[in-house]
Amino acid sequence: MKKEDIVLLNHGSGGKMAHELIRNLFFRHFDNEVLTSETDSAILDVGDGQLAFTTDSYVVNPLFFPGGNIGKLAVCGTVNDLSVSGAKPEALSVSFILEEGFLLSDLEKIVISMAETAREAGVAVVTGDTKVVEHGKCDKIFINTSGVGWLSREKKKISYGTGVAPGDIIMLNGTLGDHGITVLAARESLEMSPDLQSDCAPLNGLIQHVFETGAAVKFMRDPTRGGLATVLCELAETLQNGIELEEENIPVSPVVRGACEVFGYDPLYLANEGKVVMVVAEKDADSVLTALREHPLGQEAVMIGQITENHPGKVVLRTEIGGNRIVDMLAGEQLPRIC
Amino acid sequence: MKKEDIVLLNHGSGGKMAHELIRNLFFRHFDNEVLTSETDSAILDVGDGQLAFTTDSYVVNPLFFPGGNIGKLAVCGTVNDLSVSGAKPEALSVSFILEEGFLLSDLEKIVISMAETAREAGVAVVTGDTKVVEHGKCDKIFINTSGVGWLSREKKKISYGTGVAPGDIIMLNGTLGDHGITVLAARESLEMSPDLQSDCAPLNGLIQHVFETGAAVKFMRDPTRGGLATVLCELAETLQNGIELEEENIPVSPVVRGACEVFGYDPLYLANEGKVVMVVAEKDADSVLTALREHPLGQEAVMIGQITENHPGKVVLRTEIGGNRIVDMLAGEQLPRIC
Repeated sequence: MKKEDIVLLNHGSGGKMAHELIRNLFFRHFDNEVLTSETDSAILDVGDGQLAFTTDSYVVNPLFFPGGNIGKLAVCGTVNDLSVSGAKPEALSVSFILEEGFLLSDLEKIVISMAETAREAGVAVVTGDTKVVEHGKCDKIFINTSGVGWLSREKKKISYGTGVAPGDIIMLNGTLGDHGITVLAARESLEMSPDLQSDCAPLNGLIQHVFETGAAVKFMRDPTRGGLATVLCELAETLQNGIELEEENIPVSPVVRGACEVFGYDPLYLANEGKVVMVVAEKDADSVLTALREHPLGQEAVMIGQITENHPGKVVLRTEIGGNRIVDMLAGEQLPRIC
Repeated sequence: MKKEDIVLLNHGSGGKMAHELIRNLFFRHFDNEVLTSETDSAILDVGDGQLAFTTDSYVVNPLFFPGGNIGKLAVCGTVNDLSVSGAKPEALSVSFILEEGFLLSDLEKIVISMAETAREAGVAVVTGDTKVVEHGKCDKIFINTSGVGWLSREKKKISYGTGVAPGDIIMLNGTLGDHGITVLAARESLEMSPDLQSDCAPLNGLIQHVFETGAAVKFMRDPTRGGLATVLCELAETLQNGIELEEENIPVSPVVRGACEVFGYDPLYLANEGKVVMVVAEKDADSVLTALREHPLGQEAVMIGQITENHPGKVVLRTEIGGNRIVDMLAGEQLPRIC
């Protein structure tokens, strides 16, 4: 069997191979404008507003890790995909694929965690499905959550980033890579600092708090698989503007920085599950930053960069030692099963 | 490990154990009215109408079978869950969990089939997700489809069956068990009649054609996992009316009947993927039957029974030899991974 004929782990990574699969296979056959706009949630017209609609399956390994578990992750991920579209998450579906022999007590722990997270986010689990496969035919439990949320007409363009212009400021609500390194450490049973835990959290409250400032958020995305680099590379490509990042402003905790040095990961590509990238006009940047920092999930919020006319379509990192480095979408190996 | 502590194949069967898991675990923790109303799709208020929202994961084995494949099934299943709620299916999400090493050519066949079925049903695939797990950690491919559809206010009660009353007629659009026996035969490589194939089809066109008669459909459900028996047992329990079925009117093809005799299955419990159970007022029964039979997917439509005041909460089958048999929800083994 040739490598180019089969599915590889990297097809699920959020990097270049995943993009190729999406464009060459899924977009080609399922061709329609809503899908190919590549927003985090699909945006559908309904009455006076829009419906945001999104789906994700979760296959994270291990199931339980500091700061969360597969169930909490599944609720946060879908709530966040709706929220970064500017939508108010309203309802979730939950679909389980269970391996015969999986402990019901573990299933209950996961379900309780999902229910708690859904309550925290103010969304209801309104429909579901359960399938069971024979022992050995799946890895304990996989969860799909899909979600719907309402979106006012004026927030529709957040998903598309069509209002973004040179000069706009890029903000981030906290440190990068906590989820990725936490899952890696839990999987490999590495001894890490007890401070290290997944950032897994529903972001709708934080985003709502920013909306209440009245500032126009021009673009949002949650940097999950593929990390901040992937979000910004996609944005630069879509806008055909440049993006300049200041490396010294990008927050990474010491333990994540240390783990990245040891294992050869770049925090820009690591998965996050409680982070949002926001783009706002320069005039709104201070008030948005203040609002972000007022919220428990945004205390470490920072401005990390700016949209530029220079180097259209490219993301450039101004390094701490004074150089410039092009940030590309990751082509090589990423951490599999991180979400 | 005790049997009562672990997930068993029957937890995914649509029978009694599945119901217990849903009620004792999922309903307890995700408690809300929309969920616990146990409609096929969740019904959410939006503007002047309602949104129907549903999800299903597909783990069918084998992936390809006469009349369909996992992809066609995944589109039909979710289109049908929306359609039997009285909704017009509008958009689907598709989420793949792929095993490392799965043939991209098989994935493409599946995707093409999904796209064709979606076009036939007039719905768009608007959002998606792809995860890949290591070889041996899932069985080739699992697919989740979720869907949304619009529902006019007057059709809301179809899902709940609240308009159903004694005297109403129960209709079925064709033979029972074709999907179940087809998948079983394909899995076990049994030589069966070339006529046998899955009934897998999107039902929204058929249902729309019935709506166009102006007849008020009082209840609909697609008898998938758990079969006709499960649908009617749930309905009788909800209504606290009785249901009487005429065994001689229930259509089963000779090849399915033969297979059931050989393998000890009851067609009432076998899965269907292109069938709908409809309840209509006696005065509308003839016009609905005519409409059903005018459509390619309803040519063998029949009236199979009636809602009664007798034996409330129970389904009674009048057998061909003149006896009465209580039809219960299946407690024992069912065919796993049928959808």
